Amino acid sequence: MIRAVILGYGNLGKAVQQALSAAPDMQLKAIYTRRAAQLRQQPEEHLPGVPFLEPQELTASGREIDIVINCGGSAQDLPRTTAVLSGHFCVADSFDTHAAIAEHYAAVDTAARAGSKLSVISAGWDPGLFSLMRLFGNAFLPDGQTATFWGPGVSQGHSEALRRLPGVIDARQYTIPKENILQDVRNGNTSPPVQLSHKRLCYIVAQPDTDLPFLEKTIRNIPNYFQDYETEIHFISQEEMTKQHGRLPHGGYVICTQSGSDKDTQCMELKLQLSSNPAFTAAVLVACARAAVRLYRCGERGCRTMLDIPPALYLPRDGGSLRASLL
Amino acid sequence: MIRAVILGYGNLGKAVQQALSAAPDMQLKAIYTRRAAQLRQQPEEHLPGVPFLEPQELTASGREIDIVINCGGSAQDLPRTTAVLSGHFCVADSFDTHAAIAEHYAAVDTAARAGSKLSVISAGWDPGLFSLMRLFGNAFLPDGQTATFWGPGVSQGHSEALRRLPGVIDARQYTIPKENILQDVRNGNTSPPVQLSHKRLCYIVAQPDTDLPFLEKTIRNIPNYFQDYETEIHFISQEEMTKQHGRLPHGGYVICTQSGSDKDTQCMELKLQLSSNPAFTAAVLVACARAAVRLYRCGERGCRTMLDIPPALYLPRDGGSLRASLL
Repeated sequence: MIRAVILGYGNLGKAVQQALSAAPDMQLKAIYTRRAAQLRQQPEEHLPGVPFLEPQELTASGREIDIVINCGGSAQDLPRTTAVLSGHFCVADSFDTHAAIAEHYAAVDTAARAGSKLSVISAGWDPGLFSLMRLFGNAFLPDGQTATFWGPGVSQGHSEALRRLPGVIDARQYTIPKENILQDVRNGNTSPPVQLSHKRLCYIVAQPDTDLPFLEKTIRNIPNYFQDYETEIHFISQEEMTKQHGRLPHGGYVICTQSGSDKDTQCMELKLQLSSNPAFTAAVLVACARAAVRLYRCGERGCRTMLDIPPALYLPRDGGSLRASLL
Repeated sequence: MIRAVILGYGNLGKAVQQALSAAPDMQLKAIYTRRAAQLRQQPEEHLPGVPFLEPQELTASGREIDIVINCGGSAQDLPRTTAVLSGHFCVADSFDTHAAIAEHYAAVDTAARAGSKLSVISAGWDPGLFSLMRLFGNAFLPDGQTATFWGPGVSQGHSEALRRLPGVIDARQYTIPKENILQDVRNGNTSPPVQLSHKRLCYIVAQPDTDLPFLEKTIRNIPNYFQDYETEIHFISQEEMTKQHGRLPHGGYVICTQSGSDKDTQCMELKLQLSSNPAFTAAVLVACARAAVRLYRCGERGCRTMLDIPPALYLPRDGGSLRASLL
């Protein structure tokens, strides 16, 4: 039995709790959250027998824990907590700030080696499953091209940027890959920059009396977020927002091609369509937590990513059974 | 430098020779083939400096070889040769008879452990890349469903079965997954048996005066191959056959779904479209050969499949560079 604890109880932490309850070889021992006191007073949030504890109590309970599943955010929490915890526990996180992975990796690797532990960082779908597909593309279609597209799906960062504008009551932004570019890339052409290969579809509930043409112009001029993108803006009622846009779907494509001497194209395409982004990320994170503990028990130490994990370690079954049913 | 030799010089062996010439960290030292004497007299077949040798000379040259890339056929060659060679060398093969993998694995594992070597078997796309996708489906969409479809592509076994019929001069059989079933499976429905989810499209050049209705009826009644399948038969001229059906494309789909409590479906789909089946299999086989040597140099012994290989080992680059460019 792998004894796991969850650190952080937002969307991802709740989804990891669900995923652990379906894992036959893992046991959730505690949930550590800054809202522990508040949640203890809401018994309906409890999984029976799983206590809510304050984060600062975590290091005191070292001997009872095989893995800390760190469900904090990439911006504020993970850079601070995963490395510190890795000196005391095996840890799995879903750190997804691509530009800062090298730094995060180095800090976690140093701490885990010093504490003789093993941590897995950046578990999820991008980075994660999509990274594996890009690697397979590089390895199995050498001298080919690899392109990644995101969506159709809700970008929470872009939705939040819209909600902060004066006159906006609620907003949802869908990132959508352009179908004609997808098709070009499948045919072996180079992918254009992300601004040209995706469009941004905005649904906005505006306050009455808002100058809509001005608001629309303001949105189109927000640098990085909407400027340079094909942006479609729809003003809708709060009722329609609640009814039509309550979900957090996401997904995307990794398309790897290799053009042969005779103009033929070899093409490998992964398409991911998620009705719940947190549920999928949680399942990957739990599988990586399992793999981390198994690598640790084999004597491995330091930091790992999904690029390093033997895939068989994701599933709680022996090699013979995996070969018989999956190979 | 990884010193490799090729055993077997059919379509796959030739494609492996191509793939090795593009691998910066691997060097082709020799090609062992039953047609060595004959090929030595055709210098245009030679890669400069790579000798053609008889298979029986292979064991005599042990110290010069890091990996034997065994390009024999799964029916006759590999069960006989990979296990024997694994007692003396690290070996990589593309054994693809799904039902016999357990037996092949056991024989190779025993031999490799006895000889203190490491071999990788069943490298390719199915078994191989498709097996990895099925594993990711099981791990990341737990309690979901996984379906595999083959084609559109040429089935060499079915084409050969047609060519053996009296009155048939030439034939090509395309296996084609049914679009409506693919869509059903993406929506979370269970995949029906392979006979109902694929159709068989046959192009046949018949001898003049052949009783075509009788031939057509004969084909439709061949058990396992065409009986129980939706089969479409077209009689064409030799000219059209040569012009339109000279390629060996293949590919397929692995579709993994998970139905949520709210009827929403999470879907992960890999689509592979190969204009050259042997070229892709060769690239995977060479990447697995590289991984086998690296595992061996780390002290690992015995038999492995792609389910066991840390993906980073497929590429001749260090971890930091892979994380920076792929993660």
